[in-house]
Amino acid sequence: MKVLIVHAHPEPQSFTAALKDAAIADLTAAGHEVVVSDLYAMQWNPVASAADFGSRGNPEYMNYALEQRANAEAGTLAADIEAELAKVMAADLIIFTFPLYWFSVPAILKGWFDRVLVSGRVYGGRRFYDQGSLAGKRGWLVLTCGGRDYMLSEGGIHGDMTQILKPVLQGTLAYTGLSVLPPFTGYHIPYLSPEKRAEILADFRARLAALDSVEPLTMPVLASYDREMKPLDREMKPLA
Amino acid sequence: MKVLIVHAHPEPQSFTAALKDAAIADLTAAGHEVVVSDLYAMQWNPVASAADFGSRGNPEYMNYALEQRANAEAGTLAADIEAELAKVMAADLIIFTFPLYWFSVPAILKGWFDRVLVSGRVYGGRRFYDQGSLAGKRGWLVLTCGGRDYMLSEGGIHGDMTQILKPVLQGTLAYTGLSVLPPFTGYHIPYLSPEKRAEILADFRARLAALDSVEPLTMPVLASYDREMKPLDREMKPLA
Repeated sequence: MKVLIVHAHPEPQSFTAALKDAAIADLTAAGHEVVVSDLYAMQWNPVASAADFGSRGNPEYMNYALEQRANAEAGTLAADIEAELAKVMAADLIIFTFPLYWFSVPAILKGWFDRVLVSGRVYGGRRFYDQGSLAGKRGWLVLTCGGRDYMLSEGGIHGDMTQILKPVLQGTLAYTGLSVLPPFTGYHIPYLSPEKRAEILADFRARLAALDSVEPLTMPVLASYDREMKPLDREMKPLA
Repeated sequence: MKVLIVHAHPEPQSFTAALKDAAIADLTAAGHEVVVSDLYAMQWNPVASAADFGSRGNPEYMNYALEQRANAEAGTLAADIEAELAKVMAADLIIFTFPLYWFSVPAILKGWFDRVLVSGRVYGGRRFYDQGSLAGKRGWLVLTCGGRDYMLSEGGIHGDMTQILKPVLQGTLAYTGLSVLPPFTGYHIPYLSPEKRAEILADFRARLAALDSVEPLTMPVLASYDREMKPLDREMKPLA
């Protein structure tokens, strides 16, 4: 199996980096091929802009997604985007390791989504969710946060973590066709003892070893919707 | 009223920019003072890193939020962060205008959240949600997207837009103490005729004119939770 790890933490000694390093070590030892995009180390540019395009479908007015399609077809996407896309296309499993910032990914990783998940390459037109171009590959979020698990659960003060991560789990990973594994979350990390952190690291390694037995999350399937993306199995009440 | 508009769109002629310009014009005409942070025009740096800190609480290991607190106290935050913080603190209403990228804000705006909403200044310790430092101010998301409204509604293929935006509405704006107004969303924008866009712009101006009569969204209130942030009004089943 080929594995791409996209890592986004500003501190190389962080516990998030320890999770990333454990994944590299254990997956390599198991005979898999691991490639790492360490976004801070690469000084990854997260800002989607006209500078990403070597040609223009419309030189007068830039719609980012439409220019992605035009430039994907013309072969004129920026080199740093093409390099990441090649890693994505080669991978069977993509792991994202990051700290939760504002109930989401750090901006440097958000900008990897914005720039690398190119319309016309990984999705486009009627190719999204199970029809997305990354179908057959798996995606996995591995994250750390300061909150405690009960604060990020149903009935807790912030609500359920899977709901909080929905824009990433469904709106990003599943949208491109990835089968999305249940996230691994290390809670309350800045405040834990080394012993507690070691326990979480051991839990993570056990999850890594058992990856193939994990059921992906349930996501929308295009066959349940008509050509206008209205659900086929219920009465639709249009809002406008 | 003092209004800060944080604008994040790479195309100055975009419909999102037209919404921003209408807000500037109408709010100014109504006698309000409007300040704009146009993140693309400012070439805003969205990457949270050690470079944000002129001193270090812990020189050996960087936890971003803990260094925010240390540097806020020492007065050694990066100048671009302090400049944005001053605008935030002066504002009665903060409007964010942006296109939806991957069911969330563009990376350049995510990095404004990551860097400007400083622990120790806008939240910290037990000061969050209704106890956050921005309590008394209002926040409003004004966004555009390619999808149709029924696709981003309950029962639609992507689910309800307010749920999709929860990490921003609750996890970011409400977390800092802002009263959060219901978002204004322009749907299907890249595919609409000029006439349809004009209708949406007129709807937006009507919403602007009636801002003071809009009820904020319901958000968590710390008085409902104990010192460990467990809910007071129900039996708690800890997960760990």
